[in-house]
Amino acid sequence: MDAASEYRCPVYSSDTVDAAKRAELLVRPVKSSADILALVSPILDSVRNGGDEGLRSCVVKFDRCLAAEDTAFPLTLKAPFPAELAKIDPKVKQAIDVAYSNIKAFHSAQMERESEPIRVETMPGVVCQRFARPIGSVGLYVPGGTAVLPSTALMLGVPAQVAGCKNITLATPPRPDGSISPEIIYIAGLVGAQTVVRAGGAHAIAAMAYGTETVPKADKLYGPGNQFVTAAKMSVAMDSGARVAIDVPAGPSEVLVIADKTADPALVASDLLGQQEHGLDSQSVLITIDCDDAYVEAVNAAVAEQAQALPRAEILRKSLSQSFILQTKTVDEAFAFSNDYAPEHLLLYIADAAKSIELVENAGSVFVGPWSPVACGDYASGTNHTLPTVGYAKQYSGVSTSSFLKHFTSQELSPAGLKNLGPYVEILADVEQLGAHKASVSLRLDKIAREGL
Amino acid sequence: MDAASEYRCPVYSSDTVDAAKRAELLVRPVKSSADILALVSPILDSVRNGGDEGLRSCVVKFDRCLAAEDTAFPLTLKAPFPAELAKIDPKVKQAIDVAYSNIKAFHSAQMERESEPIRVETMPGVVCQRFARPIGSVGLYVPGGTAVLPSTALMLGVPAQVAGCKNITLATPPRPDGSISPEIIYIAGLVGAQTVVRAGGAHAIAAMAYGTETVPKADKLYGPGNQFVTAAKMSVAMDSGARVAIDVPAGPSEVLVIADKTADPALVASDLLGQQEHGLDSQSVLITIDCDDAYVEAVNAAVAEQAQALPRAEILRKSLSQSFILQTKTVDEAFAFSNDYAPEHLLLYIADAAKSIELVENAGSVFVGPWSPVACGDYASGTNHTLPTVGYAKQYSGVSTSSFLKHFTSQELSPAGLKNLGPYVEILADVEQLGAHKASVSLRLDKIAREGL
Repeated sequence: MDAASEYRCPVYSSDTVDAAKRAELLVRPVKSSADILALVSPILDSVRNGGDEGLRSCVVKFDRCLAAEDTAFPLTLKAPFPAELAKIDPKVKQAIDVAYSNIKAFHSAQMERESEPIRVETMPGVVCQRFARPIGSVGLYVPGGTAVLPSTALMLGVPAQVAGCKNITLATPPRPDGSISPEIIYIAGLVGAQTVVRAGGAHAIAAMAYGTETVPKADKLYGPGNQFVTAAKMSVAMDSGARVAIDVPAGPSEVLVIADKTADPALVASDLLGQQEHGLDSQSVLITIDCDDAYVEAVNAAVAEQAQALPRAEILRKSLSQSFILQTKTVDEAFAFSNDYAPEHLLLYIADAAKSIELVENAGSVFVGPWSPVACGDYASGTNHTLPTVGYAKQYSGVSTSSFLKHFTSQELSPAGLKNLGPYVEILADVEQLGAHKASVSLRLDKIAREGL
Repeated sequence: MDAASEYRCPVYSSDTVDAAKRAELLVRPVKSSADILALVSPILDSVRNGGDEGLRSCVVKFDRCLAAEDTAFPLTLKAPFPAELAKIDPKVKQAIDVAYSNIKAFHSAQMERESEPIRVETMPGVVCQRFARPIGSVGLYVPGGTAVLPSTALMLGVPAQVAGCKNITLATPPRPDGSISPEIIYIAGLVGAQTVVRAGGAHAIAAMAYGTETVPKADKLYGPGNQFVTAAKMSVAMDSGARVAIDVPAGPSEVLVIADKTADPALVASDLLGQQEHGLDSQSVLITIDCDDAYVEAVNAAVAEQAQALPRAEILRKSLSQSFILQTKTVDEAFAFSNDYAPEHLLLYIADAAKSIELVENAGSVFVGPWSPVACGDYASGTNHTLPTVGYAKQYSGVSTSSFLKHFTSQELSPAGLKNLGPYVEILADVEQLGAHKASVSLRLDKIAREGL
């Protein structure tokens, strides 16, 4: 076996894949979260009961931030953030500014639509409306530590700002010396965050869910994270004492590429590798439509060639066995598999790609045509990169401006409206044996009759 | 103590309520769900592992449906439902038809808006869009048994139909003889349900979450229920093996009425009683604005007088101590309390009620003016009655057409678009040290240059 063959995606053909094998290909590895829930539970308790001091000891212990041992070390930074903490390379600043502008433009279009109440007069004199309001206090989790992930700060902070959330808190793990990467501080300022919490992991989630002396209590928590962060988010969302919601269930990242003969094998390979470099539990899937074995071999050859030249070659060598290529005959067959798989990222590298969006039922975000690699959506095209994974695109949407809003309805009846609707309400209240419900209508109808309204 | 004084809401004044007492008034009793989760866990397992046979034994045991002991008794009814199972009083049929029509009109207006993709060209050549799709398979839980709750079947079934969900399953507990109330069957037909499951409780939730031989697996579960149903919904939503979402956290029902001197004390009393008849854990709150003690006494006198004449007088006698009246001075003070309380139902019985909707931050549904009792929204005005309770209106919306949709985004870049955006993506991928992400852009930019695109 030469070195190149270590970098290879397993290949299947729909001719030989039976129903059982198809079902197996659709399944992602599911990790049981029960053990991790048990591990995070004492961490959550220590912050819930201990407040800032509980949080501080977790920051020392789990974030390995020795600076926090000094009780004079502030666990939070409050806006306005000092300019010297946000000093970044001008080229990086420009790239962040472009990404910010695009994300803001796309998420603002959602807000424009949401700002307008829906109003329907369902019967004469019965007016129903629906209104959006920003969620008051939101907590954004930005993973970090050794790597710097400014893109997550943008993807969570911009829709919060666009939605009009009044109290934006951003938590991210500090470095050992207690500092936060300047890119994150710069973005926290851009999006109008009030507080940066220098903490990562389950304890950061607990601090925002329950609030501490210096960390504002959040109404909803957002953002990806490791399995401890995910377990902590699930745990507080289930705790009716916390009264906190979460964004989407988190899981390993994935891409499904649908390609036909028009797709350049080298570019397809680059898309598969872009996904697999995230780690060993990531999955990239290629569905070919009416492509021969030589095409598939060309993709695998390009995978091997490109992978060995990449900085994360070792991760790629191990993780490519998690990926696979499935050869299909028709567009319908390819989309049927994709819709059953419900990928986080769906890349349509086929003729008539734009038109085939109508065939997509389940996906997080779709990348249309040859010039739309996933990395563009990850960073800067304008769409959000916080997306449902492991098949949850069947029932969840990615993070959007709506994720930072909640809606309420209203109804206003005129006397004529109540005369039109009330008698039916009385009948239905009778069926459900709710006498006081009925009386609240009857007493009003009596009054309307009495006063000749 | 005379009989009347047993029916009385406790009274507080904002003059004498300090911060601690105010905080106490805002809190709803929180029940720990850990014990119930432990109770439902074996029920969920028996249906998950045993399929229809596991479900059948639960229907016999927990729904006390002896008819199900016969293995020939079908646990599900499939559409089209026989007309003889849907025979109802023509007056009730008419009332249901009116409610259906109003609910459909209001929820269709939401769908019209959602059907139109959002499209933004964030940079020249970079087009981002957002699309809505119906959730494929939905499971609606309609409580029942002794009481008949057709309104819940309407409130869940109509938005599922309007959203275009292909596979609608409705579960409701059967009577001892195995029959389902004809109102429910009639509505199941109206909303286009494919399956009615004759099961209630945690086992009905498990059957829809995991699927059985005859019950379709649902992607999302909806509907209220007792504490076992609620615990089962939470449990399956947390189980990554189930891959199922739920609508809103459930809790006891509640109303907050804001009234000024223009409000008729007898009608205000009827609104408080309409809420309290739901049961001992319901709560009704009256906030008065600039009303004297005589006004408050008039409300309490009307409460006592009306309560004793109602069929659920005994429930009301016990549950009114859960309610309270808070006297405030100003509109701002009243709305500040209401927004902190975040009521499921908010009734605005004040001068300029319509204008004061803009002061509402947190509420499930708002009932505007003297002629809009909560019962109208419960049944037939057009708004949905499945609403966030116990303060969850701060972060959750009630059930709506959106609850039956999920969204995905797309991006399509032209060669010019990638030339505009790509260099910034490369810089950001460098910051995050993701070499393969960067390469997926660089290889495309090379090709564009090479081919002169």
